[in-house]
Amino acid sequence: MPLSLHDAQQVLHAQPFSELLGAELVQFSAEGIELRVPISEQLKQQHGFVHGGVIAYAADNALTFAGGFALGPSVVTSEFKINYVRPVLGRVLIARAVVVHAGRKQAVCRCEISSQDGDTEVLCALAQGTISTIDRRDDA
Amino acid sequence: MPLSLHDAQQVLHAQPFSELLGAELVQFSAEGIELRVPISEQLKQQHGFVHGGVIAYAADNALTFAGGFALGPSVVTSEFKINYVRPVLGRVLIARAVVVHAGRKQAVCRCEISSQDGDTEVLCALAQGTISTIDRRDDA
Amino acid sequence: MPLSLHDAQQVLHAQPFSELLGAELVQFSAEGIELRVPISEQLKQQHGFVHGGVIAYAADNALTFAGGFALGPSVVTSEFKINYVRPVLGRVLIARAVVVHAGRKQAVCRCEISSQDGDTEVLCALAQGTISTIDRRDDA
Amino acid sequence: MPLSLHDAQQVLHAQPFSELLGAELVQFSAEGIELRVPISEQLKQQHGFVHGGVIAYAADNALTFAGGFALGPSVVTSEFKINYVRPVLGRVLIARAVVVHAGRKQAVCRCEISSQDGDTEVLCALAQGTISTIDRRDDA
Repeated sequence: MPLSLHDAQQVLHAQPFSELLGAELVQFSAEGIELRVPISEQLKQQHGFVHGGVIAYAADNALTFAGGFALGPSVVTSEFKINYVRPVLGRVLIARAVVVHAGRKQAVCRCEISSQDGDTEVLCALAQGTISTIDRRDDA
Repeated sequence: MPLSLHDAQQVLHAQPFSELLGAELVQFSAEGIELRVPISEQLKQQHGFVHGGVIAYAADNALTFAGGFALGPSVVTSEFKINYVRPVLGRVLIARAVVVHAGRKQAVCRCEISSQDGDTEVLCALAQGTISTIDRRDDA
Repeated sequence: MPLSLHDAQQVLHAQPFSELLGAELVQFSAEGIELRVPISEQLKQQHGFVHGGVIAYAADNALTFAGGFALGPSVVTSEFKINYVRPVLGRVLIARAVVVHAGRKQAVCRCEISSQDGDTEVLCALAQGTISTIDRRDDA
Repeated sequence: MPLSLHDAQQVLHAQPFSELLGAELVQFSAEGIELRVPISEQLKQQHGFVHGGVIAYAADNALTFAGGFALGPSVVTSEFKINYVRPVLGRVLIARAVVVHAGRKQAVCRCEISSQDGDTEVLCALAQGTISTIDRRDDA
């Protein structure tokens, strides 16, 4: 049985780095997961945009949670790829991820990252990657 | 003329997110760049390893600085891909990046991310991506 | 004005490698493009499945045509990433690609590759990549 | 015990698609593998360069053979990423791949693809990907 949203939120809050960034999980279901990061000054780069590393964090973590819905809680991101298409401004960074294909031990997921400012939401990056159960990762 | 190490360090320190993570640039030359992030509790995930998002940050930023050595200071990472091969423990996260091919407006770079604990250094992830001059990114 | 389906088919037929593989373009529109490759013995690997290189060809070419709809005929694939999720059997390999974001000189596209046998169609691979106008590729 | 070069060549020759393209395996060792494809008219695209799909084939197959040296003969490419950096001209396409990290069931490999014309060799593309043992691929 998949984790509940509440259980998944507990996992997120047990990640010190996600706490540092203020990330919140607002959806965790068969339709996909949604992770939100409020944009503050400390998440930016030198030109006033959100740092690419924050966007990569959001993609990595959203992909992992999407894979975790399909595979269970003990998963890691094995690899992913991200294309940045617009600089991120706005008030909230939103990462939505879905499972495209899941086996028993591995899932391939996609993620779209957008920035939101009031009612406006703009696509900023897209990612694709592999989530694996921890026992599958034989190289630890 | 490429930026000096000192100039590049100023750019890094002008990134609030890099300051939040405590990143330091210790090499910036034709042989490659090296970015170091001291590992603290707040950079970890729920199992005590460094969060994948921190590793992705280090890869993204190291790739950008490597591209910036070849292309000049006004560059962004257009896209990259990362494979995680071992969980990150240790005291320092080290990302080393090199330019594999550079044109006038775009460079393809590679990065290896390792963790260091005393004299021991272990490869933890590898990345490959495209760095573009900002004027080349036409879709902002 | 975008190319017509007929124009795009002429481009495909001007590619000797696509002719060698027997590829056909059956859709070329704002909704996406569809490339089909009839599966024959000579496209297989040693276990009787379609060779991964054929699937990568279909992804590469479908991504390029999708980008070409948005950017015009003089485009190349700068980079892409592909995840294989199932071995390819069946009678026809189908690659469908869409533009997710397009600027003036660069487009980020996605592609799904499936195999079809009669009425059954199964997802076999997914790809994501960057298409660039040729003048943008400064490193030729 | 790893396969011999001769054994690996037999595997390559058992791939009808590799035979169609005329691929040859000339190195298969702990130092890496080298796959060569003689460039003929039928491997080209509409501008007279080698088709990106041929380059992607060479990357995919070289990565698989590199992984197979480390993991044994029953392997598949799970995913890879490729950056094209120059159009391919010349007489021979050369793909060299190395294992960067191998576990028992999965290996992460890199590949460089160049074109050769007489004594001149030019880097044209670079790739990075994951090779898995077939029993590890649970989603067939």
